[in-house]
Amino acid sequence: MPNAILLISCRDKKGITATVTDFVFKNNGNIEHADQHIDAQSNIFFMRIEWSLKNFKIAKNKIAAAFKPIAGQFAMDWNLYFTDETPRVAIFVSSYPHCLYDLLLRHKAGQLKCAIPLIISNHKDAKTIARDFGIKFLEFPITQQNKLAQERKQIALLRKESIEMVILARYGQIFTKQFVDAFPSRIINIHHSFLPAFAGSSPYDQAYRKGVKIIGATSHYVVSKLDAGPIIEQDTVRVSHRASLEDLKLKGEDLEKVVLSRAVRWHLERKILVYNNKTVIFD
Amino acid sequence: MPNAILLISCRDKKGITATVTDFVFKNNGNIEHADQHIDAQSNIFFMRIEWSLKNFKIAKNKIAAAFKPIAGQFAMDWNLYFTDETPRVAIFVSSYPHCLYDLLLRHKAGQLKCAIPLIISNHKDAKTIARDFGIKFLEFPITQQNKLAQERKQIALLRKESIEMVILARYGQIFTKQFVDAFPSRIINIHHSFLPAFAGSSPYDQAYRKGVKIIGATSHYVVSKLDAGPIIEQDTVRVSHRASLEDLKLKGEDLEKVVLSRAVRWHLERKILVYNNKTVIFD
Amino acid sequence: MPNAILLISCRDKKGITATVTDFVFKNNGNIEHADQHIDAQSNIFFMRIEWSLKNFKIAKNKIAAAFKPIAGQFAMDWNLYFTDETPRVAIFVSSYPHCLYDLLLRHKAGQLKCAIPLIISNHKDAKTIARDFGIKFLEFPITQQNKLAQERKQIALLRKESIEMVILARYGQIFTKQFVDAFPSRIINIHHSFLPAFAGSSPYDQAYRKGVKIIGATSHYVVSKLDAGPIIEQDTVRVSHRASLEDLKLKGEDLEKVVLSRAVRWHLERKILVYNNKTVIFD
Amino acid sequence: MPNAILLISCRDKKGITATVTDFVFKNNGNIEHADQHIDAQSNIFFMRIEWSLKNFKIAKNKIAAAFKPIAGQFAMDWNLYFTDETPRVAIFVSSYPHCLYDLLLRHKAGQLKCAIPLIISNHKDAKTIARDFGIKFLEFPITQQNKLAQERKQIALLRKESIEMVILARYGQIFTKQFVDAFPSRIINIHHSFLPAFAGSSPYDQAYRKGVKIIGATSHYVVSKLDAGPIIEQDTVRVSHRASLEDLKLKGEDLEKVVLSRAVRWHLERKILVYNNKTVIFD
Repeated sequence: MPNAILLISCRDKKGITATVTDFVFKNNGNIEHADQHIDAQSNIFFMRIEWSLKNFKIAKNKIAAAFKPIAGQFAMDWNLYFTDETPRVAIFVSSYPHCLYDLLLRHKAGQLKCAIPLIISNHKDAKTIARDFGIKFLEFPITQQNKLAQERKQIALLRKESIEMVILARYGQIFTKQFVDAFPSRIINIHHSFLPAFAGSSPYDQAYRKGVKIIGATSHYVVSKLDAGPIIEQDTVRVSHRASLEDLKLKGEDLEKVVLSRAVRWHLERKILVYNNKTVIFD
Repeated sequence: MPNAILLISCRDKKGITATVTDFVFKNNGNIEHADQHIDAQSNIFFMRIEWSLKNFKIAKNKIAAAFKPIAGQFAMDWNLYFTDETPRVAIFVSSYPHCLYDLLLRHKAGQLKCAIPLIISNHKDAKTIARDFGIKFLEFPITQQNKLAQERKQIALLRKESIEMVILARYGQIFTKQFVDAFPSRIINIHHSFLPAFAGSSPYDQAYRKGVKIIGATSHYVVSKLDAGPIIEQDTVRVSHRASLEDLKLKGEDLEKVVLSRAVRWHLERKILVYNNKTVIFD
Repeated sequence: MPNAILLISCRDKKGITATVTDFVFKNNGNIEHADQHIDAQSNIFFMRIEWSLKNFKIAKNKIAAAFKPIAGQFAMDWNLYFTDETPRVAIFVSSYPHCLYDLLLRHKAGQLKCAIPLIISNHKDAKTIARDFGIKFLEFPITQQNKLAQERKQIALLRKESIEMVILARYGQIFTKQFVDAFPSRIINIHHSFLPAFAGSSPYDQAYRKGVKIIGATSHYVVSKLDAGPIIEQDTVRVSHRASLEDLKLKGEDLEKVVLSRAVRWHLERKILVYNNKTVIFD
Repeated sequence: MPNAILLISCRDKKGITATVTDFVFKNNGNIEHADQHIDAQSNIFFMRIEWSLKNFKIAKNKIAAAFKPIAGQFAMDWNLYFTDETPRVAIFVSSYPHCLYDLLLRHKAGQLKCAIPLIISNHKDAKTIARDFGIKFLEFPITQQNKLAQERKQIALLRKESIEMVILARYGQIFTKQFVDAFPSRIINIHHSFLPAFAGSSPYDQAYRKGVKIIGATSHYVVSKLDAGPIIEQDTVRVSHRASLEDLKLKGEDLEKVVLSRAVRWHLERKILVYNNKTVIFD
């Protein structure tokens, strides 16, 4: 039997936790995880609750309907997931393959609960990697002229393939608003700097020129504004004046892999709530 | 109006969260924090719930009695605290004053919600520090012969002063079982290594001889077995072959201060649950 | 007998290291530390060499003259220091005392080889701290109108007191070019963010609003452009959505103390070379 | 033209640096890196010097002979390397493939300057990985009875293949003294704990039971005593009570990959000196 997962956010009020946990309890569900958070400044309540459907009194396909009145009572934003669903994921990549390899190997090792039916690139470079892992590869060369048209084709393709989530594994192109709006809070990017420092292009060059003593990597949901979406995860590593630009890249790539894969795993495990361009991570 | 805090642990069963949150909700309490954790291996349920007593229907001094039936129903270990109580703390120190200073300055800055009426040492060194901060200082010279007798006097003194918590801020003496048993899960020590590595004396010397590339510090509750109690917090910092033994101590002392003060703050904020010689920290 | 320390930078050429180490060796000096670095991009050579003056053939006050021809041969920027000199340091502070306390306690513990004859503030708050540590305290209230005049008085005072180095230990005022130019590469500031992110005022508020998952602190030499000087040291610490703005400040202050004190120690130990708005740290 | 690299250790004396750098300078070599370290406790001098052979007056194959008198004068342990040599490396692995994959992908990306002609295992599991990367795979099943005989065969094979360095990428077997002695300071192991804590088997289980708040990984040269060889690199990552044993392994594997690959790279770049069961890393 799978588990059910509810992700909830709403204005804080007395009784939310009691009401939600009572809903699970009365229907004979066993809560395996329950996390809540109240944002003190905005007074918004966030909750993630996961319970076993073993002996649960409500059939899986009727839980949403049964929960609706409670959601209404508290004016909740909410999503219901089940752990036996397998989200379908597409990976976009350009010429640096390290994050792509990393995701594919983690997937192969069973660490990412998803299907990866599709790899998309603006180059040919990753074609053999896709083939080695038995994944369909599609090249969409991008120019200033064809970008909007190519994006429309990509959107159509992703919809046809029922892609729920898009991972930008060092994808070098900037999407237009059209693409971003098609997958709100469903596109995860890895940026190779400690955002908001060094947004935009060539962050390692920027960091090297600035002479920072620590470099970082940031995974975030993509929004229309470049490198400005809600941050999911960050990590940093120490560098010294001895580090060349090449050394920065080498150290940074190790961060990128870890930071991106954590974000993807949390997304797939339904542990992320977005609000106010920030994230709550129930890890 | 203060908040109430319940710390609960018991065997996991359906309905605990629902029942506890319902208790708060029915009595018109507003939950400000609720964290729970289920240890998958031992199937033990842990909860910390904090709610505002503003408009709470049960008087502060009757809450414990009102909650007792629920505690009984689930065979809970539980403690009830109120945020307007000020725990009384004694600090033990020997000749290194950096942790003592750090705690006293944090206390002065309002970061530690407690009273510190007492500093105890086996040396005279900290006497002037105690005086500068207006705290009573007592010297208990310790020899192999007088240790048990001195400990008995210390226990009597701590009880007389209603000391709830003892902090060992680089106290060089090892307590006997007699003292440890008098304050179960109420003595916090800082050990200047990444436990379980380099337990016992001179951990920096041990680390230096071993040639480790990272050093650490560990705060833990004291149990009879030396440096073996439940770990509350740890932190580490990178060192290189260039670091002398002195450099290790210098870097380590910065860790010690941070690691000890975090443990103390969490204890005072009732965020720590101990089980099976481990800790759950609801930070 | 003290050690001599040479800090050297010049265009890289064959024979620099050989010539400098030969200078020390021929005159019977025993090299205790020698570090060099070549910046691959700018082709600049940096060196720090420290040797014992025990049995050194050249008298201490004649070493500079003896080294001059070598410096000339390679067109070096160079400075000669001796470990028995005690630099005189002034600390500027506003209302947050944690960095000030930290520096004073490290100084008292013998970890900072300098004299601290002077604490300067735009407020009265730190007066009692200065008194407790037996240090002269001077208040310079700053307004938009009197800033230039007050700075002139401060510069005169610092010169009269033979102050070699200025530490801004959370000093809230921004200096004009006039003050900065009077102490080039001799003013160390602590900024409570991971620069270049969150420069300017209220960096913790900025970080909190942005929803970063890691916060940082940066020590740097002050230049005319705000928070843009050569970075000496940085450190970071992980935060989560659970952290309030207050929690960020609390965690950040621990970083600030460590990051500032490292920078100050390296400066005092003559381990820092500045070039191209970056630093080489021979730690 | 390649660079030459000298790794030197000897009792500290006046004039070593001057003599060595003069040797390079007089023969028209341009020093690109020079690092030295003096161990204050043992008074041992360590040096790594790398210079360009472009226009160097001594032919590559005569440098060793030319340097010998200097080495004799100071009773040096020394090794001479050239950057156009490509060390041959064998990787041993058992059933966890993450470190193997990581090394192979870094090698493919040009980050490890070596040849990897051989993968050896006590299982069949890695056979397809070896094939995918075009590397010879040999299975040596190990039992208590055949271990010594199998090791003899492995030693013979490694010699026949001119293997200079052995990497244990989560190899589950413990070598006997016979094998270890055949490759002194030439076998690098990754141990999945922060040594000396949790040596031996199942370190993640040990860490989980102990309730540590930080886990680590350690790369070290293999000596006869289990997990006790000179430490090359370590790293740590924070965990909480929420982390299951599986989570520990997942986080730990990311550390293992980074920590092992750094050690391998430093070894290949001739940046490691071993003494007194510790390492000097000129990174």
